[in-house]
Amino acid sequence: MDSNQPDLDLVFFAMADGTRRAVLQKLGEGPASVSDLSEPFDMALPPFMKHIKMLEKAKLITTRKVGRVRTCELNPDTYADLENWLHEQRRQWDSRYQKLDALLTQMKGASE
Amino acid sequence: MDSNQPDLDLVFFAMADGTRRAVLQKLGEGPASVSDLSEPFDMALPPFMKHIKMLEKAKLITTRKVGRVRTCELNPDTYADLENWLHEQRRQWDSRYQKLDALLTQMKGASE
Repeated sequence: MDSNQPDLDLVFFAMADGTRRAVLQKLGEGPASVSDLSEPFDMALPPFMKHIKMLEKAKLITTRKVGRVRTCELNPDTYADLENWLHEQRRQWDSRYQKLDALLTQMKGASE
Repeated sequence: MDSNQPDLDLVFFAMADGTRRAVLQKLGEGPASVSDLSEPFDMALPPFMKHIKMLEKAKLITTRKVGRVRTCELNPDTYADLENWLHEQRRQWDSRYQKLDALLTQMKGASE
């Protein structure tokens, strides 16, 4: 896989968790600190940080630390790559099914 | 989550594997038997069947057994639900960013 492409194993795995999806959703409102993000979850900071690190590893978010505050921000490019990948898959399937449909219609026409 | 909705944890987890994504891609060409699907992979049948069962559990595929042959078929509904979910997320983010942009433009106009 091209190194500019997202690592789909990592991206899909990062999305396969309700807490991480909720963090992404919240970051859609704008950048936020780890402590603000963790607030709605009944979770200690170390396991919450594991979720943050997983999202960062998958390049779904970026983080930066200023003083003692780590701020997280959505990386919409990875998300767009994921959407485009899924869309491209479906486009290929649809095109195959359309060809099959056309063939069936043609066969039906020939048999009538 | 509504029981008619896909289990997103399961769906994303099922997609987080190159072998399973390749199986989905192949099934885009039409239904296929487990043995045909396993053919390109250098993998014993039991671990390959685990991948098939994971895809089935996530409702990304359906399978049926006739005699000794198990045939797999894509379930495009789950895939469409996944795409729609992702699209809806991005739509929400885009709309928030657009509002922020409009606000910034307004503030810039007021300060000039």
